[in-house]
Amino acid sequence: MSDTYERAQAPAPALPGDAGRPAASALREEAARLDAADPLAGHRAKFALDDATVYLDGNSLGALPAHVPARMADVIGREWGELRIRSWDESGWWTAPERIGDRIAPLVGAAAGQIVAGDSTSVNVFKAVVAATRLAGEGRDEILVDASTFPTDGYIAESAARMTGHRIVALDPADVPGAANDRTALALVNHVDYRTGRLHDLPGTTAALHAAGALAVWDLCHSAGALPVGLDAHGVDLAVGCTYKYLNGGPGSPAYLYVAERHQDRFDSPLPGWTSHAAPFGMEPGYRAADGAVRGRVGTPDILSMLALEAALDVWDGVGIEAVRAKSLALTDFFLECVAAYVPAGRVTPITPAAHAERGSQVALACEDAPDVMPELIRRGVVGDLRPGLLRFGFTPLYVGFSDAERAARVLADVLAGRPSD
Amino acid sequence: MSDTYERAQAPAPALPGDAGRPAASALREEAARLDAADPLAGHRAKFALDDATVYLDGNSLGALPAHVPARMADVIGREWGELRIRSWDESGWWTAPERIGDRIAPLVGAAAGQIVAGDSTSVNVFKAVVAATRLAGEGRDEILVDASTFPTDGYIAESAARMTGHRIVALDPADVPGAANDRTALALVNHVDYRTGRLHDLPGTTAALHAAGALAVWDLCHSAGALPVGLDAHGVDLAVGCTYKYLNGGPGSPAYLYVAERHQDRFDSPLPGWTSHAAPFGMEPGYRAADGAVRGRVGTPDILSMLALEAALDVWDGVGIEAVRAKSLALTDFFLECVAAYVPAGRVTPITPAAHAERGSQVALACEDAPDVMPELIRRGVVGDLRPGLLRFGFTPLYVGFSDAERAARVLADVLAGRPSD
Repeated sequence: MSDTYERAQAPAPALPGDAGRPAASALREEAARLDAADPLAGHRAKFALDDATVYLDGNSLGALPAHVPARMADVIGREWGELRIRSWDESGWWTAPERIGDRIAPLVGAAAGQIVAGDSTSVNVFKAVVAATRLAGEGRDEILVDASTFPTDGYIAESAARMTGHRIVALDPADVPGAANDRTALALVNHVDYRTGRLHDLPGTTAALHAAGALAVWDLCHSAGALPVGLDAHGVDLAVGCTYKYLNGGPGSPAYLYVAERHQDRFDSPLPGWTSHAAPFGMEPGYRAADGAVRGRVGTPDILSMLALEAALDVWDGVGIEAVRAKSLALTDFFLECVAAYVPAGRVTPITPAAHAERGSQVALACEDAPDVMPELIRRGVVGDLRPGLLRFGFTPLYVGFSDAERAARVLADVLAGRPSD
Repeated sequence: MSDTYERAQAPAPALPGDAGRPAASALREEAARLDAADPLAGHRAKFALDDATVYLDGNSLGALPAHVPARMADVIGREWGELRIRSWDESGWWTAPERIGDRIAPLVGAAAGQIVAGDSTSVNVFKAVVAATRLAGEGRDEILVDASTFPTDGYIAESAARMTGHRIVALDPADVPGAANDRTALALVNHVDYRTGRLHDLPGTTAALHAAGALAVWDLCHSAGALPVGLDAHGVDLAVGCTYKYLNGGPGSPAYLYVAERHQDRFDSPLPGWTSHAAPFGMEPGYRAADGAVRGRVGTPDILSMLALEAALDVWDGVGIEAVRAKSLALTDFFLECVAAYVPAGRVTPITPAAHAERGSQVALACEDAPDVMPELIRRGVVGDLRPGLLRFGFTPLYVGFSDAERAARVLADVLAGRPSD
């Protein structure tokens, strides 16, 4: 895929665009050329999008796949409304968590039978961290936690540590490999930092943890669906992720839990709900864990959210994650280039790494007046989001194009320069 | 309400209906008379139901309220599809868990601000049991658990006890008051037994626990929406429940957690996810719990399931739970009478208590050949469900009538007698 988004010319020099957007014409033409050559461009039509908006918040809530409303009308009207209780069996509701897990699996490099969908990311972090302490065994009393993580992972890890008697060591993800030692039970690390968009070294960190006899637990919220993860290939032990960002599952759609096949028979959940029982309808007074990934289930699955997610995953049919990654890098490169060319000097500072190996699929710009800038951007049809001190723009390769990136940078420059809309 | 369903004549004697359904004509007339006088009869039109089916499984999955499909089309098509990320604020998604909690509150006798919707019942049992051990304080190392409970409560309580260092004592709910002592941290009890339909003594059990200095945690899955609960009036400490049975929220719709106002400032959740933080968008590295019921939240709420539930709760507008209870008792009385009159002697044995004070809103019939009988009942349009050794029939007063009850008993008698369908 490396040639697909090859540039027709050397990138425009990063001109300080103090007033006149000097490179605009050339960059607009370049964007149009890149869009015309983009092999993923046709996927945009699968989504409910309007041309008035540049939607750069798919890293927070993915756009609606256009076929989902009809599917949900059938789920609600016929499966619930007419078949009612029979749908648990006849409509396949009961097995949705593991079936959807197997749909997510190829997107994160996992063989079938290792992922179940359900619960929130926070709840899955709790399951994964507690289960990992149990897999690590006695004598390992430390949990390493990514100090820059999305806060919920840290809060939940702290609670898990309090309940299991472990000690939390918060540190920069880059320092995890060097910090792992014979007291380390596990490390919980985000694959991509939600603020900066920095991609952490999953293969190297996982290998270093294993060398120290510890387990690697990865949070894939900001990487799944945006870049190759390679859970099996890199020997990850446990992983969690959400599905409402790059997987477009809908607001608050179910999260998922990956338990590597080699750990499943010793996976010991702190939330052993009835749907993870070996005989859930036997209603036995004692718990006996089911075999396989379903051991990560807890309570009755939330079917409406679950089946919207399942339908949403259809957009991945025939799409390779390597192709998505190639476009993602080309898009974020191009956006950074447009920002450098257009935006008044000194008003924003990219904090997303320039190196491809360290970049996820978003661009974060430090900006002093971010709380004023983002609402105005949204008013002008460029939807990103705000994190403390930051403008955050997510690039979802299935539905964002190069002309979108150029327009977003141009509108950002207008807002920062105090120019009116075009 | 006590006179509303008064019988026109003394109940028919319990004739052994070995072949000819001797009392059928009289009971059908009585059913029609009771339906005509039923002040709740008009609510049936709010649901998507067909007259070919007698749906007696609303205690497992409530019927679809007829207005929910249109509401969900708007949630999916406009709120997600058009407003996208803006809906977290503009469509009120963010506050849905506590807003829905306040809608459930009057149905279970709670003042506003004490309930949040979200997660599964199992996950909420974990929060409630762990938090109750922390509220109970040091020196109380026993957790009493209803031995006849729906299994997930027992499995989760066992896991909580393992993690907090408590000891589980499983016993009959009737024995909980006598067993509570100065080592008891809490008791976890089902308000209505899922198998037998027995209603347990919530006021008396709660008072006895309090007298021993222990907390009362109630599971309301089989009582909320079917009968008055009186959480505040009886001083319950914590409670959980599902919303897909008598509350008609949809398959696997979010459960809820009640934390009595007096405990909220010391409620210490084992699942302190970011949405329960005092400043969730501050993205602070340290956890600070929000005030109030929202402290029971965990991760990002599953909006599609959540908003279907919210819409479904509209069917309760103008309905008093006392009226529902009066009809529920009249319905289950009448069904038991029809069963006694029609069903061949010795083929089924009601295990649901005859005393009103001990009865929920379902009738369970022990039946040796239940696994053969229920599928045939369903084939003939009478939908109940099967639990080990039992035929279970739920009576949902908002949409089940007396003629439904009579027909169900008549079809049951036909199936057991080997008679063909009418």
